[in-house]
Amino acid sequence: MKYIRQDDTIIALSTPLGNGAIAVIRISGEEALSILNPLLKRTIRSTDARKALFNEFISSSQSVVDQIVTTFFKSPASYTGEDVVEISCHCNPLIINRIIDEIIRNDARVAEPGEFTLRAFLNGKMDLSQAEAVAEIINARTRQSLTQSLRHLEGRFSEIIAKIHRQILNNLALLEINLDFSDEEIEVLPVREMAEKMTGVIERIQGLLKTYDYGRLLQEGVKMLILGKPNVGKSSLLNVLLARDRAIVSEIPGTTRDYIEATMEIDGLAVQAVDTAGIRQTEDTVEAIGVQLALAQIESSDIALCLFDAHRPLDDDDHALIKIIQDRLQDTLFVLILNKSDLKRNAKTETAIKSLNLPTVRVSAKTQTNIQSLKRTIKKQLIHDQSMETEEIVVTSARHKQALENTVRSLQNAIAAMEMNASEEIIAVDIRLALDHLGEITGETTSEDVLNHIFANFCIGK
Amino acid sequence: MKYIRQDDTIIALSTPLGNGAIAVIRISGEEALSILNPLLKRTIRSTDARKALFNEFISSSQSVVDQIVTTFFKSPASYTGEDVVEISCHCNPLIINRIIDEIIRNDARVAEPGEFTLRAFLNGKMDLSQAEAVAEIINARTRQSLTQSLRHLEGRFSEIIAKIHRQILNNLALLEINLDFSDEEIEVLPVREMAEKMTGVIERIQGLLKTYDYGRLLQEGVKMLILGKPNVGKSSLLNVLLARDRAIVSEIPGTTRDYIEATMEIDGLAVQAVDTAGIRQTEDTVEAIGVQLALAQIESSDIALCLFDAHRPLDDDDHALIKIIQDRLQDTLFVLILNKSDLKRNAKTETAIKSLNLPTVRVSAKTQTNIQSLKRTIKKQLIHDQSMETEEIVVTSARHKQALENTVRSLQNAIAAMEMNASEEIIAVDIRLALDHLGEITGETTSEDVLNHIFANFCIGK
Repeated sequence: MKYIRQDDTIIALSTPLGNGAIAVIRISGEEALSILNPLLKRTIRSTDARKALFNEFISSSQSVVDQIVTTFFKSPASYTGEDVVEISCHCNPLIINRIIDEIIRNDARVAEPGEFTLRAFLNGKMDLSQAEAVAEIINARTRQSLTQSLRHLEGRFSEIIAKIHRQILNNLALLEINLDFSDEEIEVLPVREMAEKMTGVIERIQGLLKTYDYGRLLQEGVKMLILGKPNVGKSSLLNVLLARDRAIVSEIPGTTRDYIEATMEIDGLAVQAVDTAGIRQTEDTVEAIGVQLALAQIESSDIALCLFDAHRPLDDDDHALIKIIQDRLQDTLFVLILNKSDLKRNAKTETAIKSLNLPTVRVSAKTQTNIQSLKRTIKKQLIHDQSMETEEIVVTSARHKQALENTVRSLQNAIAAMEMNASEEIIAVDIRLALDHLGEITGETTSEDVLNHIFANFCIGK
Repeated sequence: MKYIRQDDTIIALSTPLGNGAIAVIRISGEEALSILNPLLKRTIRSTDARKALFNEFISSSQSVVDQIVTTFFKSPASYTGEDVVEISCHCNPLIINRIIDEIIRNDARVAEPGEFTLRAFLNGKMDLSQAEAVAEIINARTRQSLTQSLRHLEGRFSEIIAKIHRQILNNLALLEINLDFSDEEIEVLPVREMAEKMTGVIERIQGLLKTYDYGRLLQEGVKMLILGKPNVGKSSLLNVLLARDRAIVSEIPGTTRDYIEATMEIDGLAVQAVDTAGIRQTEDTVEAIGVQLALAQIESSDIALCLFDAHRPLDDDDHALIKIIQDRLQDTLFVLILNKSDLKRNAKTETAIKSLNLPTVRVSAKTQTNIQSLKRTIKKQLIHDQSMETEEIVVTSARHKQALENTVRSLQNAIAAMEMNASEEIIAVDIRLALDHLGEITGETTSEDVLNHIFANFCIGK
């Protein structure tokens, strides 16, 4: 495993690059002090733990690189559990690079992405699900997802997992006692009762799994496609949606001319709306609504808003869109929108759209009518079970979901084995497997490959 | 003065916005602790000065906003001289905004640009030229300019100014003694000797002023225009110059299609090269070398490189460029370049170019020949007196130059008054004026308008 060399002392810039007053560089490892001290005007002593010192960074050629503040965190009372020094310097790339270069020359190396947090995990400062929450916190785009990630960081998800782990372990222990006494044909706990207990555990896990639909949207955000023929009001609607809720991120730069992306918040969900507004009209009217483009985007979207003009008869463009909707009915969530409903409505158009039997909202992007109702409908389509939103702890990670599903499967196998009067040994194998799966969440039984994958997605300096 | 309310407690993000692991928010003011403490899990006590505490930021609605580290710097041992708390939180704009919002609601306000440093100045933690050096350090683009700015921050420029100030003050004191004894017609120091001493001070200041040519280029960087007809090799030359020295900043985004800008370092100077490469060729061959564009840019450039094709006869385009050169000879620094000198050289062309009597370098952008020599020539043109580069302290600011020039002028007036046997009172007025001008550098006699102007150019959070 590329990360495993924990005896290296690592260094990275922990604050963003850009315009700012100060930057923070972090060093972690056994040699942090012995590497850094020769480069400082004021030596950091072992007794200086947690103390911010006004200091100067002096290059190996004895020139002052910057006036800095150093703060020493002594092992194990540090983020990584190792000796850590934070250097606060002026925010100039020349200074930052020079400081990092000088320290590397004294035998530290640049940290891999997430390596500080990896070390925190390996040194027992946090479990794996807490470490993952650190990255989630930095990347959270809505307050709701931030709140969930903070709860995970606090270890509240880990506590639930630990409790389930104990319950399964207790069952295993009882099973092993049965095993010890098996010659004497005494059962400490009858197999039937054990199966019942196991079923209870499975139900608890399935309760957690149910939260994942919501947790995934919370964590990953929603991709929402806006479809409709030219001039049906896609851009206007997007603007209204954006204006109502402050855009989390301004329009993403570098978008192609083929579509516009904008990120907004809809009631706690980070929604990336893709408007196919920029498509060029061609001779072929079917092509004009961008069938190809729509089909290319629809696969990767969580939901598609389809706009129709409420005060005109449906035309070929509309029928082409309706065909797309009907073709994708099984795989895609749709919300149909009758726009321009401030104008005289066309009854035939309304009837035709409503006959599709999909959630339909009348709005007017122009007069900003019914936008809240549209948002409620969007959210309801996305989150079928809205009770999830009040859950204290929500499963937000695909990895955790997978681990929980595997745990359930192994427990179900154990129950099936019990029901078939299999030997305790065979039942125990499945239960141990369940424990292994569960342990992957907190990192007790996680392979190095998985660790690598998890931490590779971190930013540098964390 | 908008800044003068020093009793406010101010807050700002001090690290850049962007992708990173941590962010640092800074609070300064008398109420820093009383505003912040109700929002913290662990109360910062007055005895916690300089101690980094693991902490939690709790919103007014009692929810955890983030796990943070707080460091308290107790007045006067802080950057601003006031009570300061630094909050290190996860680098997520939602968290940063929430923390700042909550603190503002508790009666702090967002800091103006440079307001932390302004307070440091007003509270006597640094003088004005040191405060200016803070902004220079953050903006420095080459190691040489950084080194100068650091020396200014350390107060080494201030020391020189203080020494000159003392010398002038001594003269004033002697003059005032003369004044007291004027009835008795005794002169403690004959006016002639005093004038000599004054002349010595003027020479010292003029020595400093001489460094400004270099200091300005060091601080502000150099704008270098690259001129020449299409296909003479402007872009190739630019690329060679860029490739040899790592670009400090990658190509500046948002440049117009009319020219290309790139920033590079030439031996300690930050050079912004402007290549008029993108100009469209028109029917009119004179227009083809972009006369209009060249003239528009040349005014604001420090130096212009003019490229000619060494192996072809001069054509109309070249003659148009030569005309520009001859017209601007008095106002612009030029370096003439005979490019493509790897090919058979055209003797007539060479003779014509050399007859212009300007620094001329033969290069080949294609084979990268003679590029170092070109750079030396560019630098020599820019910095006539290269001894300046070894000066310990260089005047880098137009404001300081102005103040020094005004000081010289007042001292010269004083000497002239002495020579005209003016009364001591009149001489003293000029000397006091000189002291005032000098005091503007360190901020002893700086108007609020000037202060406003200086600090408005700072970044937020410093």
